[in-house]
Amino acid sequence: MSSFSVTGVSSRTAARVGLLHLAHGTVETPNFMPVGTQGSVKAISSEELEEIGADIILSNAYHLYLRPGHDLIARAGGLHQFMQWHRPILTDSGGYQIFSLPALVKMTDEGVTFQSHIDGSTHFLTPEKVLEVQEALGVDIAMMFDQPVAYPATKEATKVAMDRTLLWAERLKAKRSLDTQLVFGIVQGGFDAEMRIESTERTVEIGFDGYALGGLSFGEPTELTGELTELMTHRLPKDQPRYMMGVGHPTDILAAVARGVDLFDCVLPTRLGRNGCAYTTYGRINMKNAQYVADFGPLDPDCSCKVCQKHSRAYLRHLYKSGEILAARLVTYHNLHFYLNLMRRLREAIRRDQFSEFKSGFERSYDED
Amino acid sequence: MSSFSVTGVSSRTAARVGLLHLAHGTVETPNFMPVGTQGSVKAISSEELEEIGADIILSNAYHLYLRPGHDLIARAGGLHQFMQWHRPILTDSGGYQIFSLPALVKMTDEGVTFQSHIDGSTHFLTPEKVLEVQEALGVDIAMMFDQPVAYPATKEATKVAMDRTLLWAERLKAKRSLDTQLVFGIVQGGFDAEMRIESTERTVEIGFDGYALGGLSFGEPTELTGELTELMTHRLPKDQPRYMMGVGHPTDILAAVARGVDLFDCVLPTRLGRNGCAYTTYGRINMKNAQYVADFGPLDPDCSCKVCQKHSRAYLRHLYKSGEILAARLVTYHNLHFYLNLMRRLREAIRRDQFSEFKSGFERSYDED
Repeated sequence: MSSFSVTGVSSRTAARVGLLHLAHGTVETPNFMPVGTQGSVKAISSEELEEIGADIILSNAYHLYLRPGHDLIARAGGLHQFMQWHRPILTDSGGYQIFSLPALVKMTDEGVTFQSHIDGSTHFLTPEKVLEVQEALGVDIAMMFDQPVAYPATKEATKVAMDRTLLWAERLKAKRSLDTQLVFGIVQGGFDAEMRIESTERTVEIGFDGYALGGLSFGEPTELTGELTELMTHRLPKDQPRYMMGVGHPTDILAAVARGVDLFDCVLPTRLGRNGCAYTTYGRINMKNAQYVADFGPLDPDCSCKVCQKHSRAYLRHLYKSGEILAARLVTYHNLHFYLNLMRRLREAIRRDQFSEFKSGFERSYDED
Repeated sequence: MSSFSVTGVSSRTAARVGLLHLAHGTVETPNFMPVGTQGSVKAISSEELEEIGADIILSNAYHLYLRPGHDLIARAGGLHQFMQWHRPILTDSGGYQIFSLPALVKMTDEGVTFQSHIDGSTHFLTPEKVLEVQEALGVDIAMMFDQPVAYPATKEATKVAMDRTLLWAERLKAKRSLDTQLVFGIVQGGFDAEMRIESTERTVEIGFDGYALGGLSFGEPTELTGELTELMTHRLPKDQPRYMMGVGHPTDILAAVARGVDLFDCVLPTRLGRNGCAYTTYGRINMKNAQYVADFGPLDPDCSCKVCQKHSRAYLRHLYKSGEILAARLVTYHNLHFYLNLMRRLREAIRRDQFSEFKSGFERSYDED
């Protein structure tokens, strides 16, 4: 596939900018995907996502398979039509979600038997079925079904999960049928350098339209995330997109971009927005804190989003303390703007070959505690 | 005050259209005020309220006094500035809320001692203090502090509440100080025709900028609401605005407009919107019902709001079933649009002297069950 092109590289890091051409539009990379697990980016409308400048969002095939069902969404004309979002969508396959389920019944090389977290009904999913679900959803990028491991993991457990993920990758090869949908492979290998290398090389050999760095930020120390990332990015094709799943804090994203990662998603800006926590140039602030009770300034004085142009910390704090839905709406909006603006600014810095300076500048001001 | 002018009357009913000139803009009447009890119309932004065409909203002095405090809001520059809504605001005094409190400690002619529903702290509010709170909020219309009674009420309890409300009305006369704020009196008298008449006449004699019909739709049969409304509207000055508090269903509003009422507020469109219930031309529908699971049509085929232009019942049902905040946002938006559009259409009908036809047409199609 020639759907991705690198249009600029940083001279002192592995950071790069590129264009990813998808069925519903072109995504500039590096980019961040707001998370809309159940077909809605929590508290935010699709008009607002466009307003903030989201180029692509993430949804979850496993969640949509369970509710409302991929067949229903196909009848509605696909996920874009169902949720009225007309730019690209990537769906996660749900490997992470299923293997985190307490009610997981059985996993074999054939597939996974589990109980629905919604109604307790029993389901059997295979990698083939999960791809079929994503084809029915009609999304721009489908993720293969994979098996991650949480930190710490034994060598044995890591190898079983890695081998199974590779077996599933192999099986998908013959199954891919949609011209309009890219399929990304997922590299596993836990927290073991050798297995990460093996998983990368074998996944690339099987061949996908893009590659995800799976199972990271899953409890391991940040330094280890960095080392493992580098082992993988060094071995991934330069001319294909790289997606680090479920990551992360702004500083994690900058670190991964410096190592050549192109795509990210994370629930943090939305989840924290609902819980009263706002991102600012100087770090996160908890809007419930008493110190903001009479603070009539904006969430972030350096922010150009419409919430910061209009509303005061005092008002937002009042909304949180009063349990008003508007608090979640406004701060989620601001937080997503913060993330997407960070991505815009770092792309610009890469284009000007000033990424290192941009990264250090951001880290100096931003207090990640 | 010459802030109100009747600009048209219906020849076969007492319905009328008018213009109410307030510090933050002119309100066409009859009109409906979306409820923003705590300084936010639940789930809806101020831009959206403008988009839907809200001319005036209602907030609650008692709630804002308790949290975040009227002094804080005054420091923010008033309630308009605090919540960033720049059209008119009316605040209810909180009489209804306080007298519905389980933790009410003591009420005398002097005032009311009660415990905060937020932190249990003890407060003492007098009619003078409640006006002072509303002056600090800087709202366009302040409501006097009153004491309603719930249906059924004894003659004795009704009289005590009525006399106290009249005493408080008298005491406020000397207190009103803001040129930019109208103060409305509240007629009480429970469900007793004679006391309703007495309360109306004595409140008018004291003299306010407008008059509220208080304590209605408080458990009594609809026929009785209608009779009492008529007793009051017949005795209220024709050239001053009349506001029926907390009412109500679309059909209740039409009935009251036919009797010459000008202003309404009610939590129904917002509360029901959060709970999965949508208003349509044919009556309310519960979006959680299984019948909408694969209904790809709009909430209301006759509605021009942006939710109905974009989203399907199937998607909205999915959002409710999934507990997504967006469900509350979208259906509340539609419901408020439904109410405000009803008011726009009924004003147009009065102007053309076709109000009776409009009312019967609406009632024929709308099933209020």
